[in-house]
Amino acid sequence: MSRPSFVIDASDVIDAARVIRNAAVRTPLLENAALNALCGRRVLLKFEGAQHTGSFKFRGAYNRLARLNAAERVAGVVAWSSGNHAQGVAAAASLLAMPATIVMPADAPAIKLANTRALGAEVVTYDRHSESREEIATTLAQARGATLVPSFDDPFIIAGQGTVGLEIMEQAEVIGAPVGQILVCCGGGGLTAGIATVVKARAPDVALYSVEPEAFDDTARSLASGVREQVAPDARSICDALMAPSPGSMTFPINQALLTGGLVVSDDQVRDAMSFAFSALKLVVEPGGAVALAAMLSGLAPACEGASVVVLSGGNVDPALYAQIIQG
Amino acid sequence: MSRPSFVIDASDVIDAARVIRNAAVRTPLLENAALNALCGRRVLLKFEGAQHTGSFKFRGAYNRLARLNAAERVAGVVAWSSGNHAQGVAAAASLLAMPATIVMPADAPAIKLANTRALGAEVVTYDRHSESREEIATTLAQARGATLVPSFDDPFIIAGQGTVGLEIMEQAEVIGAPVGQILVCCGGGGLTAGIATVVKARAPDVALYSVEPEAFDDTARSLASGVREQVAPDARSICDALMAPSPGSMTFPINQALLTGGLVVSDDQVRDAMSFAFSALKLVVEPGGAVALAAMLSGLAPACEGASVVVLSGGNVDPALYAQIIQG
Repeated sequence: MSRPSFVIDASDVIDAARVIRNAAVRTPLLENAALNALCGRRVLLKFEGAQHTGSFKFRGAYNRLARLNAAERVAGVVAWSSGNHAQGVAAAASLLAMPATIVMPADAPAIKLANTRALGAEVVTYDRHSESREEIATTLAQARGATLVPSFDDPFIIAGQGTVGLEIMEQAEVIGAPVGQILVCCGGGGLTAGIATVVKARAPDVALYSVEPEAFDDTARSLASGVREQVAPDARSICDALMAPSPGSMTFPINQALLTGGLVVSDDQVRDAMSFAFSALKLVVEPGGAVALAAMLSGLAPACEGASVVVLSGGNVDPALYAQIIQG
Repeated sequence: MSRPSFVIDASDVIDAARVIRNAAVRTPLLENAALNALCGRRVLLKFEGAQHTGSFKFRGAYNRLARLNAAERVAGVVAWSSGNHAQGVAAAASLLAMPATIVMPADAPAIKLANTRALGAEVVTYDRHSESREEIATTLAQARGATLVPSFDDPFIIAGQGTVGLEIMEQAEVIGAPVGQILVCCGGGGLTAGIATVVKARAPDVALYSVEPEAFDDTARSLASGVREQVAPDARSICDALMAPSPGSMTFPINQALLTGGLVVSDDQVRDAMSFAFSALKLVVEPGGAVALAAMLSGLAPACEGASVVVLSGGNVDPALYAQIIQG
């Protein structure tokens, strides 16, 4: 079997880091004694809630939009998203002074709809169970001559998300904690693919795990079967940020080649992880952003030499849901 | 008038930083674009929720307990506290393998009582409105030959809390943000006094403000009158961490000499600040830990050249209260 050729390599992530440097937040890599004691190992937390718009998505969006030429910038961008990508694209477009239109599910968390509008984007809603967001977005983009910005299947998006991995390796080195493994939430697979690309190039021995909610375990099943599996049409989860219907056509070959394995957590494990982040870490983490922590707290991460890194990918959660979860 | 002689100077804070270095967390100094835009200035957030036990109190407690000799360590320590100092002392005692007894109000937040016990300390409760915690603690300490660990009126406690200020100056320099002012919550005044001691020695032009809840504005009134004013016996506030009845005898002379002024916020402004920290910063901040942010968001901080630093001093808040606050 010939080695697959990927859409990006580590140099693209390093380029992305240069492009986003003055726009994105270099988020902190945190450590907590209670978490270490509970897990019986050294755990480092990459806190992407501190990123602009409260999730890692700004990184890829800014890296993509910053590459558009003058004519493309005037025509603007169109994206579809359950919320975090929407906010990332809206914020990047705002910083780069271009118009943005976002196609969002009508039942997306209210905070994500409101925040996207507050960032200056036009929001077009659709019914997640009966309409195709791809069709709506594609039609809009064609009508306006605008550029479609996919949420994961795009080389610049993947490379931008990969800057999370670059920062992890740099920050872990500064504190003298060699990285043994990294646990990363996985929807379409852009964040895992970007992180894997740069981390494996720098430290081939680091183990990388995707983490998904039970009902959206398409990447775990695809890694096992070798083909891109689909999510069941009636799948439900509290992890609204991880609802991609299947692994991406660009991201999956990368993840298939570079990931060590795919872990799966229940919604209850996610709730427990969010409560732990509230009570012990004092960090607000949204359901989709808590799956990697849930895997770590549930003992699903294999033993390893070196520190275990958990990516807390975002913190955009409706107050009512959050209130319910932290009160058990 | 002769210059008052203080119980500590900047070298004591530098000593404390050396003593706590391998035990305490160097907490992050964060920045948020939405906050900067809202305040029309550069705001840096010192996030002490990431400290052991979820507040800055571990710093002073560890610095105090680490100075005890072998015989004193065997006899152990006694402290009184509404909660955060209790947890800080309990965690420091646990790390240094000495027994700790904590006198806590029976109506302290359940999470603080539970956490203190979980850290291995013996908890003795009292009625905050009818009993004297000082008497109970002093009697206990005498009976056991144990060392009393005050929550603010102690040179090692003040110096330990001052390490927050040392880290702020170092971290702000690394990111190229000269500090113009620092806003710090104030109960008994140990944190403000420690920060002021080291910051004013390094950068005399930095303006320092204590921030208090309306009903517990004793430091603001004392700074204005020049004498240590008392809190009204029937005072109430959601800021359970800031309920000291008057400025400390050791801390007030320092604060009087070094603070620029005292700011005061309402409980509603504190609630709004906690909600903002949840929705925009993705940080869990307790009421007493949010007063400085409340002052900043309410426009109470005077204009200044350089960055405004806001200390978020802790994140230990009961889930039920937090749920109520973030849902407005």
